[in-house]
Amino acid sequence: MLMKTSAQSLTEQLAERFSSRIRSRLLAPGTRLPSVRQCAQQHGVSPSTVVAAYDQLLAQGLVVARKNRGFFVREMPTPRTEGHLVETKHAARTGSSPVNATALIRGMFHKISQKPHPGMGVFPPDWLESTFMPAAVRKVTGMRALQDFSLQYGEPLGDTGLRRVLSQKLASLNVHADADHIITTVGATHALDIVSRTLLRAGDPVMVEEPGWAVEFARLSALGMRILPVPRRADGPDLDVMAKYCEVHQPKLYVSVSVFHNPTGYCLTPGSAHRLLQLANRHNFHIVEDDTYSHIAPEHATRLTALDGLQRTIYVSGFAKILAPNWRIGYLAAPSALVEPLLDTKLLSTLTTPALLERALALCIEQGQLRRHAERIRTRLDAARARSVKLALGAGCSFAAEPVGLFGWVDTGVDTDALAQRMLDEGYLIAPGALFHAARAPSTLMRINFATTQDAAFWRVFTRLKASG
Amino acid sequence: MLMKTSAQSLTEQLAERFSSRIRSRLLAPGTRLPSVRQCAQQHGVSPSTVVAAYDQLLAQGLVVARKNRGFFVREMPTPRTEGHLVETKHAARTGSSPVNATALIRGMFHKISQKPHPGMGVFPPDWLESTFMPAAVRKVTGMRALQDFSLQYGEPLGDTGLRRVLSQKLASLNVHADADHIITTVGATHALDIVSRTLLRAGDPVMVEEPGWAVEFARLSALGMRILPVPRRADGPDLDVMAKYCEVHQPKLYVSVSVFHNPTGYCLTPGSAHRLLQLANRHNFHIVEDDTYSHIAPEHATRLTALDGLQRTIYVSGFAKILAPNWRIGYLAAPSALVEPLLDTKLLSTLTTPALLERALALCIEQGQLRRHAERIRTRLDAARARSVKLALGAGCSFAAEPVGLFGWVDTGVDTDALAQRMLDEGYLIAPGALFHAARAPSTLMRINFATTQDAAFWRVFTRLKASG
Repeated sequence: MLMKTSAQSLTEQLAERFSSRIRSRLLAPGTRLPSVRQCAQQHGVSPSTVVAAYDQLLAQGLVVARKNRGFFVREMPTPRTEGHLVETKHAARTGSSPVNATALIRGMFHKISQKPHPGMGVFPPDWLESTFMPAAVRKVTGMRALQDFSLQYGEPLGDTGLRRVLSQKLASLNVHADADHIITTVGATHALDIVSRTLLRAGDPVMVEEPGWAVEFARLSALGMRILPVPRRADGPDLDVMAKYCEVHQPKLYVSVSVFHNPTGYCLTPGSAHRLLQLANRHNFHIVEDDTYSHIAPEHATRLTALDGLQRTIYVSGFAKILAPNWRIGYLAAPSALVEPLLDTKLLSTLTTPALLERALALCIEQGQLRRHAERIRTRLDAARARSVKLALGAGCSFAAEPVGLFGWVDTGVDTDALAQRMLDEGYLIAPGALFHAARAPSTLMRINFATTQDAAFWRVFTRLKASG
Repeated sequence: MLMKTSAQSLTEQLAERFSSRIRSRLLAPGTRLPSVRQCAQQHGVSPSTVVAAYDQLLAQGLVVARKNRGFFVREMPTPRTEGHLVETKHAARTGSSPVNATALIRGMFHKISQKPHPGMGVFPPDWLESTFMPAAVRKVTGMRALQDFSLQYGEPLGDTGLRRVLSQKLASLNVHADADHIITTVGATHALDIVSRTLLRAGDPVMVEEPGWAVEFARLSALGMRILPVPRRADGPDLDVMAKYCEVHQPKLYVSVSVFHNPTGYCLTPGSAHRLLQLANRHNFHIVEDDTYSHIAPEHATRLTALDGLQRTIYVSGFAKILAPNWRIGYLAAPSALVEPLLDTKLLSTLTTPALLERALALCIEQGQLRRHAERIRTRLDAARARSVKLALGAGCSFAAEPVGLFGWVDTGVDTDALAQRMLDEGYLIAPGALFHAARAPSTLMRINFATTQDAAFWRVFTRLKASG
């Protein structure tokens, strides 16, 4: 709420609020500002105050006015050096989608408030707390061990001990990969980046799931790829659409989350998996299977890599969702013929990865602590999900997909882009549906994190703002 | 030396030796194998044994025969899946240069022997050993601190404490960058990768120094950039060549090591720096200044970023050369307008970076330990350089550039590609001059690491093989 007692005028306060959000990307380029009337009502100020604030934003070059349509966040917020416009790839090539997606990524990091954030992509820190993790780190930081893990570049593929443990872990998912087919990376994000940089070049068509993970759209766009969105159904991707893409565009890669798909929670069925692999064989494309949510999924869930036997698929996963988001440990498992080219890309992008943290993680897995920790989190998540679902339904929402896993795909009945801005005023970050679409189509859907939406306070604010929209 | 007593025949042993080198990239694609006569002489076997071994390599698809010219390592070593050739970007677009450069990178990691490696790019581990580094790590791995650095994604720009310390460190080099203009990365390699991905798109022309750092050529090639090599002179780049490139190609970026240039050791003069920045202003290109060797360089050395005041230059450095190669901590400092686009690229490539190691590094710098450590290493390097230079001159070499810094740029008088293969037989990795040229032209030069060439044993082997070549 804006306060009249402040040293700043109401106009300045209002302009400041918008400008800081635009600068931090929480208000994405291309977004329409509320109408003068709406904004005045929302902030309890006079329309003339709003007009004056919008004028300030215009003068600062942060927004543009479009005749009869209102004010919009400027697409490219004036990065100038010495009078020449800096041409970034984003501005030049990819339209608004990567910039918009970075809004969500920034949201993942900005500490907006102390409140639980329904838009978060990870578990809250207190869910991840453990005593075994600090113990493992202390164990590998004995003087001698630390020097061993520090003073040379280390193994190109990644710490050998961790890769052996991962090989065993994968076997429990029926994915059979030797340690020398595994490459560790700076989180699953880096693994996906390595795969796309190795298999694709700028301009290549690539199939992605829609709805899907915004960061993946953004990265592929930034690399200059042509994105072919494949509708994701409850049982798997729409294979008719894929077949048509294959005939027309000959895409080289399909990026997929088979298990607990983000944002819907869908799991691939065995039948879909089989038909998808047949299509891949017929049309000669690779598949990268992002199994980021494997730790909270049943071992028997259908994974393409398990069916395919690492022939045409590359398996990617990481530990940000279960253990330590900031350790940035991910990995990929690849067919023999791709290991060397993928390793080249890893070395060219970061050389090696920090072995100290990799060895600590290996300890946590070897000693069974990670498995027990994951079991505890699954139990806790089940309870949180049950509460969240009840609250969401009570707030007049419906579920666009059966609620399982970490995320709920919720239909609110109102435009979630606008709602997201208003929720931000109340200190809540939500993830509007538009962010999960390559073309950023307006949407009444939003993704919720079941771990952070079991709190009635959030849903009360949600209900109030939804009704007053 | 091949042994007749082995369980394998001499032919198998010889074929095995070549095939393992080809597979590990130590024998780069496109490299010519020694003639049958030479090879027989070098390994003390009969010509028919060599012919049989080469036939095995041919049958394995590892080499190709060219009429009247001999045997060459195959450009693309047959990565096949299910009967279709995997098209990697490397094979498709960039000719042989990236693959060749990866030979050197692989060489950085392969433990060829226990001998000191003249081709290494870093200090030997025993030079980097310290007690302060393990102490700093232990300090930041107290239970509470560890959880703080682990359970959330962390600061997008990188650990705030480290960025503040880096800002102060840069001020001592006359580079004035606030902490919020600094982005931490997974080593300097990642920083250079982020810069090129942000400022360039596939097909863009980019100026690099020649001779220059092979990994940089390889990465830019892999990203699909057009490489414009600018001859590097003792005082700086050849500005006439640059001016011509600017007129014809309008390159957007110049990648440069101003201080202790790799491989020559050249340092940019103030006059050259000034003229170079004028050219950049006139033709509107950015410069990324790779200051990887800053820790062993005098503070007063001329840096483009210091002259330019972070207007048109992006500063990049890291700690692999002075503290802990495997911690993979690098950073960049950028003009205001570029911070956000560069941060987007960081987030899309790895999300954040591990704060635990960043905080430990911050401690080492804050407490002055890194500075004292660097002083000790400089003193030790000066002594090693004096010995190495004397030995190199005694072995009939001359210096193509005044010996300073970590690397010597040595003229051997013989083809160093062929010499490198023969030195490998003796367990020594050397860095042949061809690897520092974008087009990989044959060269009689080699880069030596002064820290690992102060041993007379190496130079004796070198002299013997050079004479018998």
